[in-house]
Amino acid sequence: MKDITLKEIAAKLGISITTVSKALKNYPDVSEKTRAAVLELTKSLHYTPNSFAVNLRTKESYTIGLIIPEVVHHFFSNVINGIIAEAEKNGYLVIILQSNESLELEKKQVELLINKRVDGIIMSLSNESNNDEHIKEILRREIPFVQFDKISKLIPSSKVVINDQKAAFEATEHLIKKGCKKIAHIRGPVNPQNAIDRFLGYKKALEKNNIPFDSKLVYTCKNVTFEEGKEFAKDLIDNHPDVDGVFVITDMVAVGVLAYFNENNIKVPQQIKVIGFSNWFMSQVITPKLSTVDQPSCEMGISSFNLLLEEMTSKRDHTVFKPKTIELETSIIERESSL
Amino acid sequence: MKDITLKEIAAKLGISITTVSKALKNYPDVSEKTRAAVLELTKSLHYTPNSFAVNLRTKESYTIGLIIPEVVHHFFSNVINGIIAEAEKNGYLVIILQSNESLELEKKQVELLINKRVDGIIMSLSNESNNDEHIKEILRREIPFVQFDKISKLIPSSKVVINDQKAAFEATEHLIKKGCKKIAHIRGPVNPQNAIDRFLGYKKALEKNNIPFDSKLVYTCKNVTFEEGKEFAKDLIDNHPDVDGVFVITDMVAVGVLAYFNENNIKVPQQIKVIGFSNWFMSQVITPKLSTVDQPSCEMGISSFNLLLEEMTSKRDHTVFKPKTIELETSIIERESSL
Repeated sequence: MKDITLKEIAAKLGISITTVSKALKNYPDVSEKTRAAVLELTKSLHYTPNSFAVNLRTKESYTIGLIIPEVVHHFFSNVINGIIAEAEKNGYLVIILQSNESLELEKKQVELLINKRVDGIIMSLSNESNNDEHIKEILRREIPFVQFDKISKLIPSSKVVINDQKAAFEATEHLIKKGCKKIAHIRGPVNPQNAIDRFLGYKKALEKNNIPFDSKLVYTCKNVTFEEGKEFAKDLIDNHPDVDGVFVITDMVAVGVLAYFNENNIKVPQQIKVIGFSNWFMSQVITPKLSTVDQPSCEMGISSFNLLLEEMTSKRDHTVFKPKTIELETSIIERESSL
Repeated sequence: MKDITLKEIAAKLGISITTVSKALKNYPDVSEKTRAAVLELTKSLHYTPNSFAVNLRTKESYTIGLIIPEVVHHFFSNVINGIIAEAEKNGYLVIILQSNESLELEKKQVELLINKRVDGIIMSLSNESNNDEHIKEILRREIPFVQFDKISKLIPSSKVVINDQKAAFEATEHLIKKGCKKIAHIRGPVNPQNAIDRFLGYKKALEKNNIPFDSKLVYTCKNVTFEEGKEFAKDLIDNHPDVDGVFVITDMVAVGVLAYFNENNIKVPQQIKVIGFSNWFMSQVITPKLSTVDQPSCEMGISSFNLLLEEMTSKRDHTVFKPKTIELETSIIERESSL
């Protein structure tokens, strides 16, 4: 069965296309009898309005674009979950693109979404991305835009974030309160704002507690993987056996650290305490259970969509919209790895 | 900056809209000089063709729809990964919808995608769904359609599957070869075809090896969760302490089983052996490492998109397309939980 057009419906009923269109829109100048006939026929023929034609008229697609670095990542899949659930409630569809942490791909994807005339864009930047032209282009075109998690501070759009520096400060201080005197940090890549902020939080907590900062105890992830966790854990034990605590940029890497310690009989938390970041579901089912920072991922998705919706609505109503920043709360989850 | 239209470009250059349009499409009846002027101006004004208008003409959106039960699920997030990577290579965007295992939501989502005039739909059915009208409607409208993983056998569309029955047979026989004499099965919900097939594979393996089937040793998940795994593990130990092996529908639930056993000092694999299904990344980092069935999730996404592309291309070329079924290989991964 092919799609039915207004023209075909009009022909079948022997009336004009305009009359069919008016009947479907409940215009008062169409008789009840004609309206009933049109409705019955469109229903029996499974007529649906051609959304391209509708879009061309309203200039709205009720579709938004979402660009994230990685779908297969517990944090981002939870964010996606929040965004598409909230979008659906409000009648919006979500096109999801994955930048694979590549600036080149991300540029291409922004261009695709602009060409597709999406009503708005939500984005978490790739590690290589920052204050770049393709992001500025979104603003130049006045497309409603929300950044979340990995953001560029220089881009004046709405943002949904956590206070990474404060959260990292609290995680490091948690280890200090538990008695750690020499604390290592496995940090994220050099570029992303959240990796920088978490590193600064770690450094500040040491400073406040009069623990000397030692740059040799800071390891920098390239790909933020389980394997890097294992590799850095080995280096830590081989070269700094007196380290008694480690704060890890994210749970996935921390799980790698624990795997290496388990395999090499390094006692956690007795010999060394470990705290991760983001409260991945798996953190509570591994041995030992991982202490971590709870990051509200699904809520981050919901807030991002709602900020975007506010801007899209304001654009439709031709009212002025001032970008907003929402900061969500984090909390320390204490489990076996830092007892 | 607002979007620039062909009309505005034509006005600025003092030529007709048709000439601008022809220049952009490299028609031979436009002079080199005019073409150069048009290209320069469109570039400096960041002109992009309005994709709604283009769509209305070509009737193609270069957008496909994907409906899956759950984004936050390692298996599905890997499938999404495969689909969007492959779609992007071929110039397609992917709208992702999540049915949350709800038939009502799934119906609404199919309707949305039909109204959106997507070029094709890829779907893994919700647990409540089967040979339903909304699925038949996709075929009636001749929209290219691929089912994967959780499929309805009665719907004559292309399909990407694994041989669930064979894989489950092999998993159960693996436990038997390791010496298990009394094997329980934690199965998926009653309705989905893959849960039925895995259950049948389990039953066949017992039969072939002269182990009597006992329906009291079969537990049925409602929501396929970690918590259900813990709950059924408790019942198993409390009521059937002589069970020495358990085949679990999926790794997430198996991890719940292992968590209960760990917490209650039930020795795995000495007292009871465990095998899961789907080879979730986490299965190799927990204690004990979980034996499982490797299911090619990313590959399933890639194959699904490619089958859909074949059908979309065939539709565009007005050639006949015969639905195909691709069956991907699985394999047993032996780890600590079944040694």
